[in-house]
Amino acid sequence: MQNDDHDTAQGRRPLRFALFTTNSPSGFPGSPWSQPLARDHDYRSLDSWMDLARKLEAARFDTIFWADHSGVYDTYEGSRDATVRQAVQFPINDPSALVSALATVTEHLGFAFSANVIQEPPFSFARRVATLDHLTKGRVAWNIVTSFQMSAWRNVGHETVAGHAERYARAADYVDVVYKLLEGSWEDRAVVRDLTTGIYADPSAIHSIDHVGEFYSSAGPAVTEPSPQRLPVLFQAGSSSDGRAFAARNAEAIFIGAKNPRGAASVIDDMRARVRDEGRHSDDLLVFQQLSCIVGRTEEEAKAKAEELRASINDEANLAYTSATMGLDLSAVDLDTPIGQLDTDAMQGKLRALAEAAPDKAWTFREVVSTLTAPQVVGTGEQIADYVEAYAAVGVTGMNVAFLNGLGELEDFTRYAVPELQRRGLMQTEYLPGTLREKWSGSPRVNERHPAASYRRIAAEIGHS
Amino acid sequence: MQNDDHDTAQGRRPLRFALFTTNSPSGFPGSPWSQPLARDHDYRSLDSWMDLARKLEAARFDTIFWADHSGVYDTYEGSRDATVRQAVQFPINDPSALVSALATVTEHLGFAFSANVIQEPPFSFARRVATLDHLTKGRVAWNIVTSFQMSAWRNVGHETVAGHAERYARAADYVDVVYKLLEGSWEDRAVVRDLTTGIYADPSAIHSIDHVGEFYSSAGPAVTEPSPQRLPVLFQAGSSSDGRAFAARNAEAIFIGAKNPRGAASVIDDMRARVRDEGRHSDDLLVFQQLSCIVGRTEEEAKAKAEELRASINDEANLAYTSATMGLDLSAVDLDTPIGQLDTDAMQGKLRALAEAAPDKAWTFREVVSTLTAPQVVGTGEQIADYVEAYAAVGVTGMNVAFLNGLGELEDFTRYAVPELQRRGLMQTEYLPGTLREKWSGSPRVNERHPAASYRRIAAEIGHS
Repeated sequence: MQNDDHDTAQGRRPLRFALFTTNSPSGFPGSPWSQPLARDHDYRSLDSWMDLARKLEAARFDTIFWADHSGVYDTYEGSRDATVRQAVQFPINDPSALVSALATVTEHLGFAFSANVIQEPPFSFARRVATLDHLTKGRVAWNIVTSFQMSAWRNVGHETVAGHAERYARAADYVDVVYKLLEGSWEDRAVVRDLTTGIYADPSAIHSIDHVGEFYSSAGPAVTEPSPQRLPVLFQAGSSSDGRAFAARNAEAIFIGAKNPRGAASVIDDMRARVRDEGRHSDDLLVFQQLSCIVGRTEEEAKAKAEELRASINDEANLAYTSATMGLDLSAVDLDTPIGQLDTDAMQGKLRALAEAAPDKAWTFREVVSTLTAPQVVGTGEQIADYVEAYAAVGVTGMNVAFLNGLGELEDFTRYAVPELQRRGLMQTEYLPGTLREKWSGSPRVNERHPAASYRRIAAEIGHS
Repeated sequence: MQNDDHDTAQGRRPLRFALFTTNSPSGFPGSPWSQPLARDHDYRSLDSWMDLARKLEAARFDTIFWADHSGVYDTYEGSRDATVRQAVQFPINDPSALVSALATVTEHLGFAFSANVIQEPPFSFARRVATLDHLTKGRVAWNIVTSFQMSAWRNVGHETVAGHAERYARAADYVDVVYKLLEGSWEDRAVVRDLTTGIYADPSAIHSIDHVGEFYSSAGPAVTEPSPQRLPVLFQAGSSSDGRAFAARNAEAIFIGAKNPRGAASVIDDMRARVRDEGRHSDDLLVFQQLSCIVGRTEEEAKAKAEELRASINDEANLAYTSATMGLDLSAVDLDTPIGQLDTDAMQGKLRALAEAAPDKAWTFREVVSTLTAPQVVGTGEQIADYVEAYAAVGVTGMNVAFLNGLGELEDFTRYAVPELQRRGLMQTEYLPGTLREKWSGSPRVNERHPAASYRRIAAEIGHS
């Protein structure tokens, strides 16, 4: 998914930059909502979000990215109490509701959000995401999530959470419906919009999908006409074997949380092989490494801010989050136990990557927990750029930037890190034209190697000349 | 739901004004999308919608109202072809996706949209509508819809549409979940937001709902903190006996489509009795009569515009819509048959009201069909005001204004009808402060007689002092 038109003077394709956040009081799980640089952002307020979106576009970020879930972390101490007290991604509002408002104050910024496959039928999701793609003129991305939270499943009527393999089977069925509706049910020639005859669309070019899957059924056609991208840009973040298989087939971009460039290289090698096995090209997949950082004019300034963060972190918040994502109540565990014996397939996202990257798996639970809200880089703009450069060298093509000390950190990041990243050709100085997918890959729609492309109707194939 | 602070110099409470439209090429079903006053509004464009929202607020409309459905009308000739050709509410984008964008350019305008109880689980809907209520500072209203469309049910995985009684049983279960989540699961004291201690919320004031209903189950609590209105203002439009019973219990406002003030009076009498039987006050329910109109500086000017509309109407569009809403393929019926013999309970919304209002039920199908896209008033601002005044006299408290010749008609409505309506005290000249519900009833939350109020937790009742 490379766009070669964007090479800089250094002959380098800039990395894509996403800002990681959530639609909740604290942008990052475990990061205190009440810190000085966090508290000015009111997640309930459009003004706060519009201000952030304007600043991100001024700094030439490619996209905002909202992580999301629809339950509550309730593993630690067998209750949700710590989560509620510390606002660990709870409360959490629907991020997709922000998109159209933020499109009114930006022209290029992308809007990527997580949505899990249990929160609504794929038909309803496809309709909403297509609507947003119309309204934003093609700036929407979807991070496909299979929820691991018991509470999220119980909120929408299931008795319990499905097992890991079933969750990915559900996700595969879900995206199949979305692909058929948005890529398959309306041919390119369907919309006529003829003012003279009053004909809006041609019925012969709009098709039912009659999908009957193991988990989801849908008659179709989509009730939305084709939007600029048809499908949102597709992200996925699963790091388990099932997750990687799903991403290799479906994703156009993945989020990873490697501990070092070597760890990233190993994921990238594995994913490139998997992507090729799916009949896709290895560069059909962008890789966004997490970059949690604190920046200062000097290293000392950055370290002082990091110390403020460290002092304000509440262990309870971290334990609540880690327990839920590990599926293990850490109030009942000696935190000095090495995690090596754990079944990593049962662990989620970043923790799993951390566990796998830990040498000899000798890390203790305490180390894993404290790593979660420890920034990966604390330093000057040059030091941030060095970090990014090291990841770029092993094939990372995007950064998912997280500010653990609050969204207010964007100001110093923009002041000290962005100019240096741009000077080195690691970050764009101007946006490319077109939709988010065009900016990233040069093509408005998923390419012909993506599984969704197989649902495109070619007029000749279905009996139209 | 009366707010007496708003009486005008004439001693009259102004009526509330909604603008009826849909998020589709033609604002009104059967009304041609390609008419001169319709074609400038591009439903896929934020600019078009923002322009409309600003104009509505300048004219002091209370709310925009998007009717909605999530299928395609496919009864006529046993296919969707006519619907597709004429764009009869197809394509149709998700109206809720527009709300946050339009909140950025308005301060008072309400955002009412239809959402049916099959398109997503009540938990996910509650989360989204609460998010929108936060972002708009309490300007959201929900028109509760039980979809009668086979195609809509089949789009979200059902094999067929449920019967009328089951649909309302579903709706009752659905709203129960929404009430428990948004009124019941977070006590008023739950959010602490203490910057000193870092405590965001008090776990003892947040409760699971553990709803297990016939159709929907949800564990809760809501993942959203209480929004300004907690519940959106609740609309309902069902005119069948089941629909009226549901509205009497749950609605704060209803839409009616009476043929004349006498017909409206009869609905209002019936609804007032039903509302009282539910233990509510008869003025707990606002009644919005549909007002489809064409306005001119002179009557001749208005009539010329109506003639243009009449000439551009395509019978196929009307037949497609009427067939679907009647559940009867009108291509197989002699249009000159009187409709008297039909079971009106099987008919939907406006048609049913028309059928019931028809003297001796001697109306023919042809007359019913042509009435659908015939404006109720064509004339000067004075004539519009006379019409509104006649409905106000029988107890109608709101108008749901539809422009059959396109949203561009708003300009003449604002120029010729609004000043006269305001002069007579029938339309507000300034907005009241507060949320939409406060503007309309003086109270930010549903009143104590509403069934949702029974789920409110009183601290004393549950063991907190």
